[in-house]
Amino acid sequence: RINGDRLWESLMDMARIGPGIAGGNNRQTLTDADKEGRELFQRWCEDAGLTMGVDQMGTMFMTRPGTDPDALPVYVGSHLDTQPTGGKYDGVLGVLAGLEVVRTMNDLGIRTRHPIVVTNWTNEEGARFAPAMLASGVFAGVIPLEHAYARTDMDGKTFGDELKRIGWVGDETVGARKMHAYFEYHIEQGPILEAEDKQIGVVTHCQGLWWLEFTLTGKEAHTGSTPMTMRVNAGLAMARIMEMVQEVAMEAQPGAVGGVGQVKFTPNSRNVLPAKVVFTVDIRSPDIDKLNRMRAEIEKRAADICAEIGVGCAVEAIGHFDPVTFDPTLVGRVRAAAEKLGYSHMNVISGAGHDACWAAKVAPATMIMCPCVDGLSHNEAEEISREWATAGADVLFHAVVETAEV
Amino acid sequence: RINGDRLWESLMDMARIGPGIAGGNNRQTLTDADKEGRELFQRWCEDAGLTMGVDQMGTMFMTRPGTDPDALPVYVGSHLDTQPTGGKYDGVLGVLAGLEVVRTMNDLGIRTRHPIVVTNWTNEEGARFAPAMLASGVFAGVIPLEHAYARTDMDGKTFGDELKRIGWVGDETVGARKMHAYFEYHIEQGPILEAEDKQIGVVTHCQGLWWLEFTLTGKEAHTGSTPMTMRVNAGLAMARIMEMVQEVAMEAQPGAVGGVGQVKFTPNSRNVLPAKVVFTVDIRSPDIDKLNRMRAEIEKRAADICAEIGVGCAVEAIGHFDPVTFDPTLVGRVRAAAEKLGYSHMNVISGAGHDACWAAKVAPATMIMCPCVDGLSHNEAEEISREWATAGADVLFHAVVETAEV
Ligand SMILES: NC(=O)NCCC(=O)O
Ligand SMILES: NC(=O)NCCC(=O)O
Repeated sequence: RINGDRLWESLMDMARIGPGIAGGNNRQTLTDADKEGRELFQRWCEDAGLTMGVDQMGTMFMTRPGTDPDALPVYVGSHLDTQPTGGKYDGVLGVLAGLEVVRTMNDLGIRTRHPIVVTNWTNEEGARFAPAMLASGVFAGVIPLEHAYARTDMDGKTFGDELKRIGWVGDETVGARKMHAYFEYHIEQGPILEAEDKQIGVVTHCQGLWWLEFTLTGKEAHTGSTPMTMRVNAGLAMARIMEMVQEVAMEAQPGAVGGVGQVKFTPNSRNVLPAKVVFTVDIRSPDIDKLNRMRAEIEKRAADICAEIGVGCAVEAIGHFDPVTFDPTLVGRVRAAAEKLGYSHMNVISGAGHDACWAAKVAPATMIMCPCVDGLSHNEAEEISREWATAGADVLFHAVVETAEV
Repeated sequence: RINGDRLWESLMDMARIGPGIAGGNNRQTLTDADKEGRELFQRWCEDAGLTMGVDQMGTMFMTRPGTDPDALPVYVGSHLDTQPTGGKYDGVLGVLAGLEVVRTMNDLGIRTRHPIVVTNWTNEEGARFAPAMLASGVFAGVIPLEHAYARTDMDGKTFGDELKRIGWVGDETVGARKMHAYFEYHIEQGPILEAEDKQIGVVTHCQGLWWLEFTLTGKEAHTGSTPMTMRVNAGLAMARIMEMVQEVAMEAQPGAVGGVGQVKFTPNSRNVLPAKVVFTVDIRSPDIDKLNRMRAEIEKRAADICAEIGVGCAVEAIGHFDPVTFDPTLVGRVRAAAEKLGYSHMNVISGAGHDACWAAKVAPATMIMCPCVDGLSHNEAEEISREWATAGADVLFHAVVETAEV
């Protein structure tokens, strides 16, 4: 069994870096706080005897050697970056539980045939730079490195420049590493495990996603002196598209979601009808056909809505992954570990995207989930119990050790 | 007649300060660019023999003395501040035409019984600090000085601190001055004069306004892993309120407008349903009962929309003025001047708010308008012709001189 108190203490120590405003964290990717978090994690890993490799996307690979020089490593990871108003566990739990697995192996003097690599993927959240899971996407060969470097934040700063600025451009070619297996432990970020009173989510699938960035072009004009009939109101078009996305998602029930998290009006002045409105629609489903039908429907209906008002409508898909089926052998190993340890468990489908989804493209991969209070995540009030954190880390430990072969 | 070329040259000189990105201006109130604009205007005025007074709101009063020490001044003014993506004429034309009136009087050796005071009101636009027409509102006794000082911009900076920062806190008590009359010359910012092919708008009324700032409180949550049924989606509530405002404005036709220019999502991340959405509804009508009915209807229906979704809904009225009827004697004098000078003219109702609306509370006041291309304003592409600018300034000159009594 792992040391739950030590894991919890590390979680609380990491949470002191990039504190939020309401008990959570703002440690967005490639900020000074991210840099500080990386340094702390590096120190901990080196204290545990791990050696560091960093790739050109800044992803940190912390290796515990195996006994067989020819055996590929077992990777265990997630991410240390957070949302602007993020929780203390989303991503962090998976990275620090990986470290806890290694610490426990050290305590118990366990040697494995395969090396273990604890991994911190860069820019999983996609909050500062879209899309999410950027570094693992490049690793899996789905996103070109140059494309990733050119991503910009709200202030127009590029991913490449910011990675350089915090000093974390590594020398490893992205994706050059080969994996024996990939494990990711994460909080559920949804309500099901808590509602069903289960300690462990055995993650069999992850739903797919499209991020559709709409750029609507209206006629910038005075809100007072411009008659209703002369308006080309891009804000009104946005409102209608938002309502339509809600309709499309409701019609696709069960097994689909749709919503809007980011909106930008230009010039965003109270007495000016917007010249430009940019917003991102996020749609997901575990069913690939349903997901793609939703996208087509939304794009078609949005074009009609804009045409009726005379607003220009451009759509760019700035984030995407197909639904994923995780490796049945690894999934079975997670289930068996939970069973053996006496933890209650059930199969779940991940509602959020994870680096495991991209890792699954290049290696056998799977995930383990623990419940979170009220299913709340991407919220500073995100909460889990020490017992939940411990149970999942125990399962992770057993599944990893079994896969890495003692 | 005034010197149209000199007026135009001054307009173009002022437009070089705080240039925009598309041929217009970004000279928002109390910015460094505003400070620079004030200094240029002060220099021009002093060159024309005017002496400066500045009140505690930073409003500039540039006086040309009269011959009768007991006669109250005739005020001629508007504003030099602009929208973030504003035009070169909105406000600026009225201030510089006031200066041109004085320059022409100097050229012709005209002395008047009443002094003339060319005025640059602070923060007319309300873009950086709501509400609009802030300094004239304090001058008219409608807005308390302390309230004005406490207004904040998007970055949380206060009006009071920023006024101090640029060094334009004057010593005059706001509103202590008494006016014999107030004239304001402005571009129409609407399409009617151009459509009717008239050179001069004789402004008889100004429509009233409410700015309703909505703060919607949702449940911040993950866009992917939060089931549709568990969402408390403040963005969706905003979309429905925007559509409803459009409906209310259309039902109130003719003689009403309604729209939204400013929106802020928090945390504004693509994969986070917003914790908070703040946006401003701008509604206007020349009919006070209609205007107030629209407000009541919008607030009632917004509360219903939010209640249905479970979103918290708070509304604050952050800007307001009742419809204004301008002084019939001054209106008649403007019409007579246009007639005498042979300029085509028609009566118009101002769709935008102006400092003249607040001045009308404390003195006989009126306005003169000139056409603008396509009725476009609050847009860098705002345009007028030199001939239009000249015609209105001629009418202003004659009406002012007549009121100030030679
Ligand atoms: N786990 C997580 O929140 N990842 C961010 C990417 C997503 O939006 O699903
Ligand atoms: N004239 C003008 O654009 N004033 C700003 C206040 C308003 O929104 O009407």
